[in-house]
Parts: sequence; structure tokens; C-alpha cells
Amino acid sequence: MPRPQAPEVDTRRWSGGAWEDSGDRLAAEEPLQLSLGGAPLSIVMRTPGHDLELALGLLWAEGVITSLEQVARVRMSAEAQEAEPAIEVAGDLVESNQVDVHLRGAPARLPERSFLQSSACGVCGATTVESLALDFAVLPDGPRFEAALLPRLVEALRGQQRVFDQTGGLHAAGLFQAGGEPVVVREDIGRHNAVDKVVGRALLDGLVPARRLVLAVSGRGGYEIVQKAVAAGIPVVAAVGAPSSLAVQTARRFNLTLAGFVRDARFNVYSAPDRLN
Amino acid sequence: MPRPQAPEVDTRRWSGGAWEDSGDRLAAEEPLQLSLGGAPLSIVMRTPGHDLELALGLLWAEGVITSLEQVARVRMSAEAQEAEPAIEVAGDLVESNQVDVHLRGAPARLPERSFLQSSACGVCGATTVESLALDFAVLPDGPRFEAALLPRLVEALRGQQRVFDQTGGLHAAGLFQAGGEPVVVREDIGRHNAVDKVVGRALLDGLVPARRLVLAVSGRGGYEIVQKAVAAGIPVVAAVGAPSSLAVQTARRFNLTLAGFVRDARFNVYSAPDRLN
Repeated sequence: MPRPQAPEVDTRRWSGGAWEDSGDRLAAEEPLQLSLGGAPLSIVMRTPGHDLELALGLLWAEGVITSLEQVARVRMSAEAQEAEPAIEVAGDLVESNQVDVHLRGAPARLPERSFLQSSACGVCGATTVESLALDFAVLPDGPRFEAALLPRLVEALRGQQRVFDQTGGLHAAGLFQAGGEPVVVREDIGRHNAVDKVVGRALLDGLVPARRLVLAVSGRGGYEIVQKAVAAGIPVVAAVGAPSSLAVQTARRFNLTLAGFVRDARFNVYSAPDRLN
Repeated sequence: MPRPQAPEVDTRRWSGGAWEDSGDRLAAEEPLQLSLGGAPLSIVMRTPGHDLELALGLLWAEGVITSLEQVARVRMSAEAQEAEPAIEVAGDLVESNQVDVHLRGAPARLPERSFLQSSACGVCGATTVESLALDFAVLPDGPRFEAALLPRLVEALRGQQRVFDQTGGLHAAGLFQAGGEPVVVREDIGRHNAVDKVVGRALLDGLVPARRLVLAVSGRGGYEIVQKAVAAGIPVVAAVGAPSSLAVQTARRFNLTLAGFVRDARFNVYSAPDRLN
């Protein structure tokens, strides 16, 4: 069965100073293992569906294939249910979330050692939520923060985005104290880079694990953002944009408070809401 | 010398049916080579600056280091000019855009073969614009398109975003004909994945190289988006968001028409404007 592209989850909504139970649909995010001739090539964080297209488009962009005729057959899990007249697709032969492309001859160009990962970062060696659990500790309960703090942080983050003001093209991430004071704010063209720079700064300043600080990010709250926060011991993440399904799963597993759509005087909380008053 | 985070470029602005010459500041995007003990580990597309923080934050998130004391010293190019009391930074020892982290002992965890690339995709084996040039051809001049087409495509793309309407969390990419008819539209949590799915579909349908089609994307126009368009022979890219410096460099080198900030009745063109009437 194809999985839903927008699974529903329970949330708590904070709006105008009051809490209510709610529900929200999330953009589905799952890792896809791409293999070439049976050998693992790359993990791609993607929304399930059209996985054959994704695999072929990726191999094309990387110059691994230069014509469709080079593809002998593709093995993928039956759940994908993708039949193509142009190509032999063998279903039900690999595990879920896998695509294995077999070529007729040698690749037009050998894939590099550091083959890409589109929106992937924390995925390295932690290809599933399960394997991530081996490496990082579940966050302890507490401390508590005022709910009204989160929209203020997002506003403060926006106020500090120097380069964005000039270019409209950068993401920002910031660590803040419970009273709203900024500890460090960084901008970068990559969302994950901005978070890495913030954590790197905190590390240099002896602030990791950052058990009493809040991370605010200008974009969406994806899996890697949550993973990086867990690794740094940050208990609360406030994202201006939407979270993904895997971000929420991971936040719940590690007892991290994940808030999304943080703007003006409202937001949704997807996990560990008890840290917010 | 630290490089500017917002370099200025010449552009052509289309607004309300008229063209004018203009200038625009871009978010800087450059590849950073991260090495561990002298061995290349990963390429990260990032905005230059705070590279030491980025390197440490990344290694921390991946579990390669679990305390700052494990870092013996860091070699980085003098231009970065990043001095840190907490760590020995040796400048001017590596080439530009490189950070080499030396540990005191073995890494806390071995980096995986498929180590991450934050916003990187087309970068694999094409770490610079120069090496990319080896693999793909410069796009031929023409065909020409109506300028007014571009804002219409962005509107059409938005109209087709089914899952985004439910979740607020997905990116979209679409290939369109010169008259505005959609050929294929795909949504994904990753911007690059949406483009890969579109190109994969076009490939299966025998439409690559897509010399007479326009690619519209819901987000920013980064390097990888341009790289993937070049690889698929697509002559025009219309992005709702801002382009990056490397995207513009790449588009100019490959004679691809790159438009950014495409919304309502206006946009900016950063390269090959002659394809637009």
C-alpha cells in the first residue's frame, strides 16, 4: 500500500494565550536507500511516492546514467506500486523504502564516495529513528518555558537576519535563553548549516549540552534539525515553518519539545508539550 | 580576506510588462571541503564564514566528536580569519574553502561512507563550477519564451500543490510548455527531490533533453537546482525565491536563463535574459 503523503497527528495549539487540543497533517518524510547493482549508494530523505522517478532523476543529474537504455531493471518494494512501460520494474523484491537500479553495463560515470543526500544531514549512520537511538540520550524532563516566549524568539531571529535583509536568500538559526536573550544567531544558505554553526559556537563557548536554551529556526522543522538539537541536548525547538512526520517521530522518541508554525501569537506543539506553560 | 556574504550582481528586472537594468545582492554559496586528519570527509554547500563552527557542529551532530577536548587542532585557510581561544587554529595551511580537523585519538564514532551534505546534491564529484563543466554541455541559444509566462507558471505550480495545501510543508517543481501547459508537477519535502522526480518522469517519457520546456520551482534557486536543469537540458528556470551566488555563476556558465523572485507580475533575470521576450 502506498503510504499517505500527509499523515495526521495529534497536536496542542497555543493561540492568543490559550491552549487547545488539535490535529494537524504533516508532510511525510522517510529515508530512501538508493542502491546501484545491489550496492548501497546513498540515503535520501524524501516524501514517499514516485521513488522510481526520484532514483532515475538523481542518477541522471549525477551523470551515472546518460540514457534510459542503460537501465536494465529496477527492483523496488511492492508498496511503491510503480509500473512503467519504459523500464522493467520488479516489485516486492527489496525491503520497504529501497530502490535498487541495475545497469546493463558500467555506469557512465562512477558515483563519488561522497554521493549526495538531498535534504539529508543527520542521516549519516543514523538512517532510521531506531539507529539514531543508539547514539544519543533521551532528553530529561524540564525545564519549563513560557509559551509566549516562542513567538518572541522567532521575531527576534528575524530582526537579527542581516544578510537575509539584503538578499532574501538565507536561513537563520538562533539559541536563546528562557528570558528571550539571544546567545548566538547564525545565517546560512543551508538550514542545517545555520544550526551546525550555532551548535559549533555553543560548543566552543562550553554551552553544550544546552539544557536550558531554546533553538529557533527560520524554516521548517525537518528531521535533521531535530536530530541536531537532540545531539546538542537542546530541549525545545521553535520552527517558523511546518515540521515533517519524521521530525515529530524523532522529537517524541527523544522527549524534545517541537513547535511549528510559530508566528505572531500562536504555534502548534507536536511533542513533549509539558515543557511549555 | 573574508569574502562578502552578499555579493552584488547585474540583473534585468521585469515588472508590469517592462524591462529595466538593475542590480541585486545574492546570498553567497560556496562548497566547503571538510577533512578529518587530512582525509577528505565531505563537501558542504554553505555561506562562507564561521566555517570552524560549521565543521565542529557537523562533527558533533554526527557523533564523530563528543567533547571539544578530542580536537587537537584545526587547519583552515587564512582568509577565514577565525581565532578561537578554546582550540588551536592554524591558518594559511590549506587551500581556500577547506577545513581540516585533527583529533587527539580515534573518532568517537567513525563517519559513515555516505556522510552528509547539507544543501548539497549536484556537488558530488562536481565540487566546483569548473569540474561541473567537464560533464555537461553549455545550453544552445533559444528558444524564446514570453516573459509574462513565468509568473503564470509559478501560479499554476501553487495551484497544483495538493499536499502543501494540507501540510504547509512541501516543495514543488514543475515542467511546463511554452504556452503554460503543465507537463509534470511533483511535490517533496526536499526541494532537490521534487526536481529529481520531475526529471525522472521526463526521462521515462522520452522528454530529456527538455530543450523547449521551463522548470518552475517553489523555493529558492540554489546551485543544485541549476545543475539539475543543465543536466536535463532545460533552458529556463523560474524560482519563487532568491538565487544563490553559485547558482548565478553556474547559470551564466551554461547559458541557462535563471529567473528569481518570480511572483505576481514581476521577476529578476540573472543570466541569459535573451530567451525572454
